[in-house]
Parts: sequence; C-alpha cells; structure tokens
Amino acid sequence: MQNKTVRDYIRTIPDFPHKGILFRDVTTLFADARGMRLCVDQLVAPFTGEKIDVVAGLEARGFILGGAVAHQLGSGFVPIRKKGKLPAATHEQEYALEYGTATVEVHRDALQPGARVLMVDDLLATGGTAKAGIALLERLGAEIIGCAFVVDLPDLGGRAVLEDMGMPIHTLCDFDGK
Amino acid sequence: MQNKTVRDYIRTIPDFPHKGILFRDVTTLFADARGMRLCVDQLVAPFTGEKIDVVAGLEARGFILGGAVAHQLGSGFVPIRKKGKLPAATHEQEYALEYGTATVEVHRDALQPGARVLMVDDLLATGGTAKAGIALLERLGAEIIGCAFVVDLPDLGGRAVLEDMGMPIHTLCDFDGK
Repeated sequence: MQNKTVRDYIRTIPDFPHKGILFRDVTTLFADARGMRLCVDQLVAPFTGEKIDVVAGLEARGFILGGAVAHQLGSGFVPIRKKGKLPAATHEQEYALEYGTATVEVHRDALQPGARVLMVDDLLATGGTAKAGIALLERLGAEIIGCAFVVDLPDLGGRAVLEDMGMPIHTLCDFDGK
Repeated sequence: MQNKTVRDYIRTIPDFPHKGILFRDVTTLFADARGMRLCVDQLVAPFTGEKIDVVAGLEARGFILGGAVAHQLGSGFVPIRKKGKLPAATHEQEYALEYGTATVEVHRDALQPGARVLMVDDLLATGGTAKAGIALLERLGAEIIGCAFVVDLPDLGGRAVLEDMGMPIHTLCDFDGK
C-alpha cells in the first residue's frame, strides 16, 4: 500500500522481553526500503536548515537509525554505548532500570565542545537512556539541537522528562502502554 | 588534510579489550563527517549498478555502517543480532570464539527468499562472525551479492575463509596483526 505510514510498518510482539510487555518492533520498518527512507526523511524534517555536526545514536537500534540519519545530513556519527564497549577513555553515566541500573558511555574525545548534535533512537519510553545520553553529550560540551525518536510511548512519560530538560523532542508515532 | 584516506581516520588503541591486542577503532572515522561519507562511498563503490534489496549489518558497529549504506543504496536494512535481542521467531547460528562460542540470530521473516543482500561490518578478522551471518542469510534464501568491511586484518585469515565460500569480499584498508 502506497500510503503506508511509518507506524504501519511497525509490528507488535506480545510478551517480549517479558510477559505482559507489548514490544514495538521496528525491524519490519527498517527491512522495507520505502519504510526506511520514509522514517529517515521524517526524523530529519524538523532539523532541515539547521547545521548538524554530529548525529549521536544510542546502542543498538539507534546505531541503525543514526548511521542513516548522519548519511542523510552529511554529518559525523558518535555512538553512545553500553559500558565496556568503547576502547578509549570515556565518560560514564548510570541510569535506573525497572530493577537495578545500567551504564552508558561516550568517548571523551568523541566531539569538539560546541559541536551541534542531534541524538536519535528508535523508541522513547521512560526517557532513562535518553536522559543519560543527553548528560554525556552535555559533559562533552555539545550543543544538543534536538532528540528524534521513531516511536513514543506517551504512557511512560519520557517526553515530559526530556522536555523538562529543555530538549526539543521529535517523534514520528505513538503507541499505547508499554 | 584533504587527502586523508579512510585508513588515516582509524586509530589504534593498544591492549583493548585484552592485553596484547591492538584494537582498530573506527569511531574516529565515523565521528568525522568527511570520513563517514568517504567510507560509505567506498564501501558501496563495487556494487554500484547492482540491484541490492537489503543491507544486512552485524551487531553493533555493522549497524552504524549498515544504516548509512542502506540509505545510500535506497535499500532496506536487516540486523544480525547477538542471541536474545530479536523479538520474533529467529534462526540461530553458533560460531567459535578464541575461548568458547557465541550465537547470532536473524528474524525468520527478515527478508524474502531471493532477496539480493549486501552484508556489511566494520572489521574482518578471523571471519567467524561474518561466516555465521552468511549462513543465516543463506538459510533465509538470500542471494548474497557480497560482503563489505572497512578494515581487513589479513594475518587472521578471514578473507580466505569467506572467499572459499564463494563470497565476493570488499575491504577498504588493511592493518597488521590482531
């Protein structure tokens, strides 16, 4: 169907990774050439005309999007990774999970202070990972132009968390619940 | 410097992840807008004029490249992931590590049989992960057009392993040792 939206390409897998979770699976969006192109076009649309030096992507699905968005914008790409994966000196940021905590890292020399950065990921839920990513980018002296996500789960409140930090948030579609 | 090659953007980190390893770090390549563009242009160059339906990327650095290459080619993107990350039904393939084994997965419905696929990753070492990725793509009925890597470590013999499988292999630069 020609009028398929980004949301139409996303499928829902019940009970992954845990019983009771409705997992919003973007692999069916990315696997489709038209879906992938549509998604990247829509993610960058509000930032057209802005100078973006670097796209930052959150591991791991944010790497797929981030590579494509960086290519579209003609920017560099910086990965924000799970702890222990980056080889050079890093800054670390811990964040809360449902049970326990996790840590993300960025290379200390990943970008120049003042670099204009767009952060991307597939899904905005509680905003915990995104908030940690923003904290790392700010510690590097980045000027964060905005954060773009394919999916927003408004019931989980992430958008409000990031907007309270003064971040321009751009999302392409919503799904109910978690 | 304007004449910087892809290889010039890559830095070497000694003793990561283990003592004695020289880690070839492509994050400095990806972080640079010119480096990222040059790398993608060179990765796709031999496949220009080929019809590529899908780019398959190996987790996790292959996701960054794969997203960018899929965008450049106007293709879809399919992730080959570490075990336990994909939400729907998968095929699994085990492969040998220096000590022990690891398993990668692909969604069973990730692509149509006969789909023309280019597989990408940042680095070709022993070829173990790439071989497992190829096995998964073949199990889906893909027609693999080639495998493209930024870095080849010829001392580790991966290229020979993949060429013995009949795969066209494209790499952008070599480094000594492991």
